[in-house]
Amino acid sequence: MASRISDAVIRRLPMYYRQLCALKQEGVSRISSMKLSALMNITASQIRQDLNCFGGFGQQGYGYPVAALRRHIAEILGIDRKYSVVIIGAGNIGQALSHYARFGSEGYEITALFDIDPGLAAKRAGGTSVLHIDRLEEFIGANPADIAVIAVPAHAAAQTAERLAAAGVKAIWNFAPVEIVQDGVVVENAQLTDGLMALTYRLGELRRSGAI
Amino acid sequence: MASRISDAVIRRLPMYYRQLCALKQEGVSRISSMKLSALMNITASQIRQDLNCFGGFGQQGYGYPVAALRRHIAEILGIDRKYSVVIIGAGNIGQALSHYARFGSEGYEITALFDIDPGLAAKRAGGTSVLHIDRLEEFIGANPADIAVIAVPAHAAAQTAERLAAAGVKAIWNFAPVEIVQDGVVVENAQLTDGLMALTYRLGELRRSGAI
Repeated sequence: MASRISDAVIRRLPMYYRQLCALKQEGVSRISSMKLSALMNITASQIRQDLNCFGGFGQQGYGYPVAALRRHIAEILGIDRKYSVVIIGAGNIGQALSHYARFGSEGYEITALFDIDPGLAAKRAGGTSVLHIDRLEEFIGANPADIAVIAVPAHAAAQTAERLAAAGVKAIWNFAPVEIVQDGVVVENAQLTDGLMALTYRLGELRRSGAI
Repeated sequence: MASRISDAVIRRLPMYYRQLCALKQEGVSRISSMKLSALMNITASQIRQDLNCFGGFGQQGYGYPVAALRRHIAEILGIDRKYSVVIIGAGNIGQALSHYARFGSEGYEITALFDIDPGLAAKRAGGTSVLHIDRLEEFIGANPADIAVIAVPAHAAAQTAERLAAAGVKAIWNFAPVEIVQDGVVVENAQLTDGLMALTYRLGELRRSGAI
């Protein structure tokens, strides 16, 4: 079934997941598409269309079962299990990610941080081991990593991706300001400025509409 | 014209923009959809469909004019001008963003960082002024901010958004792990873990396909 879900729906699933987590915490057991729409920035019809992909949920007039839908989405997203994560690059982004407590609580365990200057990095990286990048292959050989985060300068990104792929890493989350394409590896290019661009585009729309 | 461009295309425009910047730097003046496709993770037909929105570009057999297309996309995205940015919250994420040199080079000027503990933050925030959050309205009154970054804990996010809206901020880039919806303000919810979820979904697809 999962293979029939469009990329656009997949992109929205984390948003549904977070909203359902919040509702579950509040003790809500069922919710209608109208109420979900009021909580999120999505129309009720879009919500129904998105969630209809997962047959059996959301009978008319009855609403969605919060816990079951949340569990189902977690399963589709592959977040019903744990992942070990290595971070390459202990600069500002690498350090901020290694400190981001939420990753731990959501099942992503950061096992090591690598840098060309581990001495410098060790002072700042909190509880995570910082190793010299030369030890990357040795470490991953002994501690397989599900996901690698690339947080190195642009010029070093492609080479880092190649080393990770050769070491057997199958998923890369790339924060370097350059697109990475690596055969046999799923890559998510987390371009920080993309969010800003989407924002300035919508700010422009708001201006053109005369609202501001 | 911009208003007819779909959200999905808008989401891909930053990727085209970055690729066109790289090509321009390499001195490439024209590029075909086939060559762009080989450089990016997008099919040639998707590229043609996306870029056809901007009539007049990409005549068949002639390719896209790199500089003109880049300029046109920058204009659509609203990045052909400068923006002043304030960051609320000087924790790991707020600090990492304030250090992210790329923002400066792309026209986003960070004018101030706010925290409930500016003394602590000031030690770590490099060149950016750190002010107590109590001075938010005063500062924005004197130095209008185009964009505010919210990097506060989840429980403080909604209240921060309200204060920013009341102070006249029209665009919020939210890094707090909670969805923000604020009337009259464009909000981009930059959920860091969404990228990870998209990655684990695709890793699951790779597993199910038997490729790994």
